[in-house]
Amino acid sequence: MADELTHHDPSERGFASDNYAGVHPEVLEALARANGGHVTSYGDDPYTAAAHEVFRAHFGSQAQVFFVFNGTGANVVSLQAMTQRWDAVICAETAHINTDECGAPEKIAGLKLLTVSTPDGKLTPSLIDRQAWGWGDEHRAQPRVVSITQSTELGTLYTVEEIAAVTSHAHSRGMFVHLDGARIANAAAALDAPMRSFTTDAGVDVVSFGGTKNGLMYGEAIVVLNPDAVRGVDFLRKAAMQLSSKMRFVGAQFETLLSGDLWLRSARHSNAMAQRLAAAIRDIPGVTITREVQANAVFAVLPRDVTARLQEQFHFYVWSEHTGEVRWMCAFDTTEADIDDFSEAIRKEMARGA
Amino acid sequence: MADELTHHDPSERGFASDNYAGVHPEVLEALARANGGHVTSYGDDPYTAAAHEVFRAHFGSQAQVFFVFNGTGANVVSLQAMTQRWDAVICAETAHINTDECGAPEKIAGLKLLTVSTPDGKLTPSLIDRQAWGWGDEHRAQPRVVSITQSTELGTLYTVEEIAAVTSHAHSRGMFVHLDGARIANAAAALDAPMRSFTTDAGVDVVSFGGTKNGLMYGEAIVVLNPDAVRGVDFLRKAAMQLSSKMRFVGAQFETLLSGDLWLRSARHSNAMAQRLAAAIRDIPGVTITREVQANAVFAVLPRDVTARLQEQFHFYVWSEHTGEVRWMCAFDTTEADIDDFSEAIRKEMARGA
Amino acid sequence: MADELTHHDPSERGFASDNYAGVHPEVLEALARANGGHVTSYGDDPYTAAAHEVFRAHFGSQAQVFFVFNGTGANVVSLQAMTQRWDAVICAETAHINTDECGAPEKIAGLKLLTVSTPDGKLTPSLIDRQAWGWGDEHRAQPRVVSITQSTELGTLYTVEEIAAVTSHAHSRGMFVHLDGARIANAAAALDAPMRSFTTDAGVDVVSFGGTKNGLMYGEAIVVLNPDAVRGVDFLRKAAMQLSSKMRFVGAQFETLLSGDLWLRSARHSNAMAQRLAAAIRDIPGVTITREVQANAVFAVLPRDVTARLQEQFHFYVWSEHTGEVRWMCAFDTTEADIDDFSEAIRKEMARGA
Amino acid sequence: MADELTHHDPSERGFASDNYAGVHPEVLEALARANGGHVTSYGDDPYTAAAHEVFRAHFGSQAQVFFVFNGTGANVVSLQAMTQRWDAVICAETAHINTDECGAPEKIAGLKLLTVSTPDGKLTPSLIDRQAWGWGDEHRAQPRVVSITQSTELGTLYTVEEIAAVTSHAHSRGMFVHLDGARIANAAAALDAPMRSFTTDAGVDVVSFGGTKNGLMYGEAIVVLNPDAVRGVDFLRKAAMQLSSKMRFVGAQFETLLSGDLWLRSARHSNAMAQRLAAAIRDIPGVTITREVQANAVFAVLPRDVTARLQEQFHFYVWSEHTGEVRWMCAFDTTEADIDDFSEAIRKEMARGA
Repeated sequence: MADELTHHDPSERGFASDNYAGVHPEVLEALARANGGHVTSYGDDPYTAAAHEVFRAHFGSQAQVFFVFNGTGANVVSLQAMTQRWDAVICAETAHINTDECGAPEKIAGLKLLTVSTPDGKLTPSLIDRQAWGWGDEHRAQPRVVSITQSTELGTLYTVEEIAAVTSHAHSRGMFVHLDGARIANAAAALDAPMRSFTTDAGVDVVSFGGTKNGLMYGEAIVVLNPDAVRGVDFLRKAAMQLSSKMRFVGAQFETLLSGDLWLRSARHSNAMAQRLAAAIRDIPGVTITREVQANAVFAVLPRDVTARLQEQFHFYVWSEHTGEVRWMCAFDTTEADIDDFSEAIRKEMARGA
Repeated sequence: MADELTHHDPSERGFASDNYAGVHPEVLEALARANGGHVTSYGDDPYTAAAHEVFRAHFGSQAQVFFVFNGTGANVVSLQAMTQRWDAVICAETAHINTDECGAPEKIAGLKLLTVSTPDGKLTPSLIDRQAWGWGDEHRAQPRVVSITQSTELGTLYTVEEIAAVTSHAHSRGMFVHLDGARIANAAAALDAPMRSFTTDAGVDVVSFGGTKNGLMYGEAIVVLNPDAVRGVDFLRKAAMQLSSKMRFVGAQFETLLSGDLWLRSARHSNAMAQRLAAAIRDIPGVTITREVQANAVFAVLPRDVTARLQEQFHFYVWSEHTGEVRWMCAFDTTEADIDDFSEAIRKEMARGA
Repeated sequence: MADELTHHDPSERGFASDNYAGVHPEVLEALARANGGHVTSYGDDPYTAAAHEVFRAHFGSQAQVFFVFNGTGANVVSLQAMTQRWDAVICAETAHINTDECGAPEKIAGLKLLTVSTPDGKLTPSLIDRQAWGWGDEHRAQPRVVSITQSTELGTLYTVEEIAAVTSHAHSRGMFVHLDGARIANAAAALDAPMRSFTTDAGVDVVSFGGTKNGLMYGEAIVVLNPDAVRGVDFLRKAAMQLSSKMRFVGAQFETLLSGDLWLRSARHSNAMAQRLAAAIRDIPGVTITREVQANAVFAVLPRDVTARLQEQFHFYVWSEHTGEVRWMCAFDTTEADIDDFSEAIRKEMARGA
Repeated sequence: MADELTHHDPSERGFASDNYAGVHPEVLEALARANGGHVTSYGDDPYTAAAHEVFRAHFGSQAQVFFVFNGTGANVVSLQAMTQRWDAVICAETAHINTDECGAPEKIAGLKLLTVSTPDGKLTPSLIDRQAWGWGDEHRAQPRVVSITQSTELGTLYTVEEIAAVTSHAHSRGMFVHLDGARIANAAAALDAPMRSFTTDAGVDVVSFGGTKNGLMYGEAIVVLNPDAVRGVDFLRKAAMQLSSKMRFVGAQFETLLSGDLWLRSARHSNAMAQRLAAAIRDIPGVTITREVQANAVFAVLPRDVTARLQEQFHFYVWSEHTGEVRWMCAFDTTEADIDDFSEAIRKEMARGA
């Protein structure tokens, strides 16, 4: 009976995105454990409460946690809560909020994004200053938040010091700092440092904490590290259609992810797979790794027809039609064999020629 | 180990809401079955495709299905897709979109709700006409959609003919009809009629199809019955932060709910439990059932201190602080014993006196 | 040459609206006087400064004044400045913000209007309480502002005490009070009291001050009486497209209107014309005056074909297609002869029969 | 009596902005001529009708005209009418809609602006292509409109051919073209070509037609050249708070501006004054004219303390705090003596040294 309802091959994996992966088995167990009986909906339940405690153990006792459905929800509600209606958000041109959310920050929150071109997806104080001006001038949407992504959309990483420099600069200009942590666990694993070292302790005000890309089924968290940076998160979450009724199942997932080392194991593994891939292909003539490989992504340029032939065998995306750059993502369930097969295929197709 | 992570008593149930219940065991199995391996995210996966087919079997081959996270999301995205920026939506004052969504229709979609007072939560052509006027007058937001709820927020039911009268009237005025089906299965069970009889066949244009209140973990569906009634649902869903990345898990739940009779079994059961409760208390002096019991809700007025004493033993909500009316909801997992215990307690507390 | 560019008959007047009238001659002179040379745009000019002073003389030295283009702009920017993104506004069903602004409060400001049915267009503490509840509940847009209109859209008037009762009640519930003063001068004239008596001194927080209906060409003012009630008015005004570049011409008009008694003369006159009209027709059998005539409007019910025949001779609007109620507005330039001609025509057409 | 109400020196003029100027005397006469009596409000009056005709004489009989209050209103309502809720607008980074409207396009219309860096404020097909991609991808706000400014915010000018290349490219990609014509008359004067040559005849779909910067008191026009490019302009104008009640006064101004050659005389004059200024200072060592002087603006870089000393004597703005670039605008009432005095002062202060 299960057979006819199973529609996919559970042994098939690719490099398209860490959200092509399913759910970590321990997380699936947590969902079952939280089932049965009635508990209060909309977050007033013991699983949500327990998960909040686990978050506070990571980020400090002042942290306030609000679960939402997805990353766009976490980003938009966070930014709304950090801004007045006339404010603007400074971010990198490559930021997910700018490129991949169908204009949700503008359309839902009415925010103007003041974008900055960067070499590596990372903001610095001087890059921020290209847009950080005009306060008090009613003709200009007021820069109020700096949003950074850690690890970035380009697979790169801020050091703790780089984030501290951003927050210190932003705060000195009267702005708050939001960190899009869709892959925050990969960042912590790569830095080999606690998550609070580059968030709470580095002066970040609000984090969009990603779970889905690290083995959850659904669910992300807004983690408010500086309560003075936000207003009305609970109302904004509901109005933004991000309030889950059966929230216990989000709480149970996060508790399982974060109470032990599941989050770190999974992130370390996907990072290691990216390193393995990079190492395996770095010496192939004609393949250029284009971004520093610091988290679970490898970006590369290779001949377009090689890309096309590889895409017939493996799922992955062309990042830039313009340059032919491709992106290969590793997930918590990527295996060493997956990497070896893929790197072998790259080598073989390159040898076949463009 | 499971023990220390289990935070609730799976044998405890109440009457607060059908979303206090957990997940139907068959649905949980479906989630596990869909797990493992990589599939395309954002809906281009076989589980989503299979679930779409199942929806079309229920609603007709022209139906287009868009999964979202929750009911507010389904309602707001549906209404946005059915309107231009200058339009308005006619609904009952008691409609969920008016009372329980923190203004999301106004705040996210910019919609004006033109509300009508009703005796029983149901619109009629003449009630609609109280707000259906002013087309072409630029000073008035233009009535473009009539939104009804089936079964209603008051536990009442439209007959097939009543819905056909609403749609025929609305269409004759150039308006579309949206049906909020957060409890559509309860309605079908109560009418003992296929869901398409009071939707597709009755002229409804778009349905918000509820799964969560009928045993899903999360996930609702926008079911477009009349493709001419909408524009841009896919873009609006993404911009409204309602696009799930690992959508296979929503698809798998819906396939399991709707491919067999799970949806109907569960709905019939919760309806029957409401009938059992109503029957058990109808003759208690001082307890007045205030709404016709047609789906899975019982509304009643009883002395306030009796209510208070009952709330110490059972979860349920006061519906109106003003009148003291209470609401008792039954869920797919409410048992006959639950009902008997509760009705016994009501009888006992009433006997104790106010 | 002037002749071929004059397209209307300056001697023709009707009863359609006080905004069918033109500009008071003294105001036109003020425009000419402010012309010539260069002054700073966007409000940093001596005419705007002088007008602000005149406003403060009327409303108190704490008053902050922001000129905008029109009444909808004044209302929407005021309400935005008084609310957070998750808030709602309580108003009468007949309020202009609810009926005549094409949904601008919802579409521009994302505000939910919580409307109350009233007998006479006026809110009272107990009417307010029908919607004033649910604070802290994230499912309900939060009541934050009570908006009243003085004189009302039905030509009725709040007494000073009635407004004080509204503000005191609203403040005790943590809400602010906005007064839509599109016809505030008519109210002051009718009450024979200074404008501050029923605004500043009665506890009103923010006034939309109307000039256009009292003889200005264009221009209204947001008058903030309680600076703690608002945030970001200047930014919101600009983002709402209500910031005039050549603001000196708005300032000059308001200075002329308010520095002497022009505002009061004009308002007294239009009020007196409404009284004259009411007196002249009150005894005509078959004509029923439906609202207390307290400002510059007369509402009446008369046979529909009489209405039709009168509309061939005089401009005025049917207020309710449903009841046949009509509205007759008097303006600063309505003459006694206009009234006498019109009342005579009514008498004559009534005599002709329906 | 006039004296005490005159607050400025009508002989004082500067170079800060063309909106520091007042109203052309012929326009003031038109306002007086349109006064008196009652006419229908909100645009159904003979002055508005006559002005519409005049616009059609310039732009073609298919043109639809909608008067609004200001340029931001014209831009935002135009762009809203040209887009669906999920669309985006491609524009130059220097576009007024991006830099000077406090985020109104994002905050009021929910539009994402896809900005492009340009050398001279002008878009080209290849610059447009940097943002013109991603149609059909629900993760990207859909490029639907290209917005250009003529003459540009940098005082530069598109040739007729350059605009035709933009529109032809945009149309081939399924996009419409909006032209921000805040200074459209200066462009026509500079090109020595009819306005329709670089709008209607060059394939532009919608024009924001500016009057205020060319001698009107207030009032701009949305001129729809391609009716298929827009939907709901009248409703959007009202909801955007841009519908003037006493619209006859906007109509009368525009009729006067456009029925004869007032628009062209004024624009030619201000352009000529900019040329005179450029010619007078071009040879001053240490003063660099930074943009081609093609309309009524001169941009230059000069030592910062010279700028500071000049600003004590003449009003003008620093365009870029970063580079020290300044902007000098000429208006319809700038005189040759004004230019000569100013250029003399520049020469003198430069001689004094930095």
